[in-house]
Amino acid sequence: MLGRLVLPEIKELIAEGDERTLREVVNGWYPADVATVVGQLDAPDRLRVLRILEPGLAADTFAYLDRDTQVDVLGSVSRSEAAWILNTMPPDDRTAFLEDLPPEQSERWIGLLDPVERQVARSLLNYEEDSVGRLMTPDYIAVSKEWTIAQVLDFVRAHGRDSETLNVIYVVDAGHHLIDDLRIREILLAPVRSRVEDICDRKYVSLKATEERKRAVDVFRKYDRVALPVTDAHGRLVGIVTLDDVLDVAEEEATREIQQFGGLEALDEPYMSTPLPQMVRKRATWLVILFVGEMLTATAMGFFEAEISKAVVLALFVPLIISSGGNSGSQAATLIIRALALGEVRLRDWFLVVRRELLSGLLLGLILGTIGFLRIALWSAFSTIYGEHWLLVGVTVACSLLGIVLWGTITGSMLPFLLKRLGLDPATSSAPFVATLVDVTGLVIYFSVAMVILRGTLL
Amino acid sequence: MLGRLVLPEIKELIAEGDERTLREVVNGWYPADVATVVGQLDAPDRLRVLRILEPGLAADTFAYLDRDTQVDVLGSVSRSEAAWILNTMPPDDRTAFLEDLPPEQSERWIGLLDPVERQVARSLLNYEEDSVGRLMTPDYIAVSKEWTIAQVLDFVRAHGRDSETLNVIYVVDAGHHLIDDLRIREILLAPVRSRVEDICDRKYVSLKATEERKRAVDVFRKYDRVALPVTDAHGRLVGIVTLDDVLDVAEEEATREIQQFGGLEALDEPYMSTPLPQMVRKRATWLVILFVGEMLTATAMGFFEAEISKAVVLALFVPLIISSGGNSGSQAATLIIRALALGEVRLRDWFLVVRRELLSGLLLGLILGTIGFLRIALWSAFSTIYGEHWLLVGVTVACSLLGIVLWGTITGSMLPFLLKRLGLDPATSSAPFVATLVDVTGLVIYFSVAMVILRGTLL
Repeated sequence: MLGRLVLPEIKELIAEGDERTLREVVNGWYPADVATVVGQLDAPDRLRVLRILEPGLAADTFAYLDRDTQVDVLGSVSRSEAAWILNTMPPDDRTAFLEDLPPEQSERWIGLLDPVERQVARSLLNYEEDSVGRLMTPDYIAVSKEWTIAQVLDFVRAHGRDSETLNVIYVVDAGHHLIDDLRIREILLAPVRSRVEDICDRKYVSLKATEERKRAVDVFRKYDRVALPVTDAHGRLVGIVTLDDVLDVAEEEATREIQQFGGLEALDEPYMSTPLPQMVRKRATWLVILFVGEMLTATAMGFFEAEISKAVVLALFVPLIISSGGNSGSQAATLIIRALALGEVRLRDWFLVVRRELLSGLLLGLILGTIGFLRIALWSAFSTIYGEHWLLVGVTVACSLLGIVLWGTITGSMLPFLLKRLGLDPATSSAPFVATLVDVTGLVIYFSVAMVILRGTLL
Repeated sequence: MLGRLVLPEIKELIAEGDERTLREVVNGWYPADVATVVGQLDAPDRLRVLRILEPGLAADTFAYLDRDTQVDVLGSVSRSEAAWILNTMPPDDRTAFLEDLPPEQSERWIGLLDPVERQVARSLLNYEEDSVGRLMTPDYIAVSKEWTIAQVLDFVRAHGRDSETLNVIYVVDAGHHLIDDLRIREILLAPVRSRVEDICDRKYVSLKATEERKRAVDVFRKYDRVALPVTDAHGRLVGIVTLDDVLDVAEEEATREIQQFGGLEALDEPYMSTPLPQMVRKRATWLVILFVGEMLTATAMGFFEAEISKAVVLALFVPLIISSGGNSGSQAATLIIRALALGEVRLRDWFLVVRRELLSGLLLGLILGTIGFLRIALWSAFSTIYGEHWLLVGVTVACSLLGIVLWGTITGSMLPFLLKRLGLDPATSSAPFVATLVDVTGLVIYFSVAMVILRGTLL
């Protein structure tokens, strides 16, 4: 838990050339902490620190660096050093590093791997992007059900060093089909002479390598596991996924959801390290789509141009009225998108949701409508800004608000269902998207209400 | 991984009164699965199923039920059954159950606990809401550094059953101060005769019980642990937090962030189980605040009433122009809020962000301005809707768009920094909030630009 605090001290040690103290200090740290410091040094100092790390720590530290720094480091060390790092780093972290690189770069690094690791790397990268397979590590302990607990413990002592986790041990048959998962507590609590079979309940939760990685988050959340086995289509154990990787996935998915909801394509990279042209492109895409959609408001307004010129007072409330529809729509959409993402609400619950939202929308509309009316009444008591027909204007605004808030709430809550039903991502119904939709229809509602209420007076 | 699929079969078994098969089936399941099924049964059937579960499974299943069902169940079983459930369930799950209840209810249940558990429950509830202490369980294995590995393994075999995790074992001194944490792998891989001291490196990552639980998510993400020790102000070990609970916290925090961003107070409960009055209240609060803020648009428009009545064409573009500002502002705010939440961007980086956003805003404004101008030029080629001065109108709209998108982008990106600087939650700068802010200023920009460009022609 040091990181940033000790950076000046480390820089001083490097400047003084006091390699002995430096070696002692950094080798006592956790990889995550070394990586935090290394990530903030400039290129030559970075290499100096990495080179005095003990081998295991160096490979682990490398895995914690951000991708740009990783690329830099690999590019500036010798070929054999690069090969050593890549062969030593955990296979799941290696996949995470390789999968985002341009193919020719990624091929170059894969070429440095020794034959076994190369095959591992390729087979992991063969799984689709965002699949469970990409999160997987093949470093786990699998035992046979015929073994005794003593044999298992000996095996763990002999082979445990390479395993990503020793918290769970897997039982497989001769064909490497998964039979059971045993938590280390079950093994430690069993008499050493008993056989694995005796403590197997053949009850386990597993993932398929081809499943979406989002599902891994759900399964981990539901079953509270620290690691889950991953099988292929034939039920053969091909790897494990550990909870710490899933926590990262959960955060990434939340970021994606939030960014989509904010009305832009997910960046998929930290804000600061996304190149500007790429960021502008991802933002411009949605902004232009929304802009083109919003152009319909100009068309709608043009349709009512005659009414506006007759009663300019109507134009004054346009922003207030359409934004209320947009806001209530955004609220409803947020609630439903998140509830769908967490599985609190399912597609077939749409009718229950409509009922709730109808009532919510009605109440919210009544509240805003009343406030809107009061504001116009109050202002008119002290000025003539809303003219002699202010009462009718007030009624128009109040009724429009009721209608538009209700409409916005229903639209906002149903759009995610509709998108999901069509096989699209419900999160696409972002706040700006809902607002745009409701803006256009809101104008039509407003002016229609006005034409009914104000006919014969202002219009 | 069954849950919903087997519900009809279970209902059939209950209806047929085939208790033997029912007992056999459900006792072979995971608590999470039993809870899914039990949560969907009506009250009498629910009790029937819970009562045929083996004791350990029953307590665990209870912990997985949602809170409303938990309250129902406890209220309908006998006093001694309720006491048994509460005494048996994991302390951290019990805290989660008790903390959201009204005080008198929570006191009633605490009264049923036996003295030891009662003290545990009270001490956990003594920590502040959303603190690490509330996530903690006191069920862990702590050993002395003088012990041999063999002694540790014997101790684990004797006392391991009550521990929440055996993946990590803690080393404490005579005063119960934390000295080290040992992953089970280190113990399994060490020679059984060596002493705990020999494998201690006195290097560990820990949490403070009084820290915010959000911080637990960050620490777990950084150090990739499955469990972390929690200490009091004096460095004494008081409990542990496990990663599975932190995954839930991460999801809850993301939900809160998303709901705030959607422009409403966080519900803190699943959508479907939030009572309607409470939901409407949480939504109405922000909706009314935004509405009152948005009223300024009516004031701003009123200020330019004379211009609008002279050139009604100007009114037509009001929704298009202000929404573009709102959309670009929402985008920028989303990016920055999330980046701040994940620690990718810090307060003092505000200047780097301004620079980036100035450039982004300029580019995005140019894109939208160009499209806006082209649209007016195109329509005017085929109709007279925008009058003889369409070229000037087009230039007005284009310049306003450039200004407003730039302004929206800067406002949206700086607001989260400002809020954070003031000690407020950056996520309060929700999409609707940013949009409202930008709407009012956007109108002023639009009409000011119009008064400069159209003076002498339309105005």
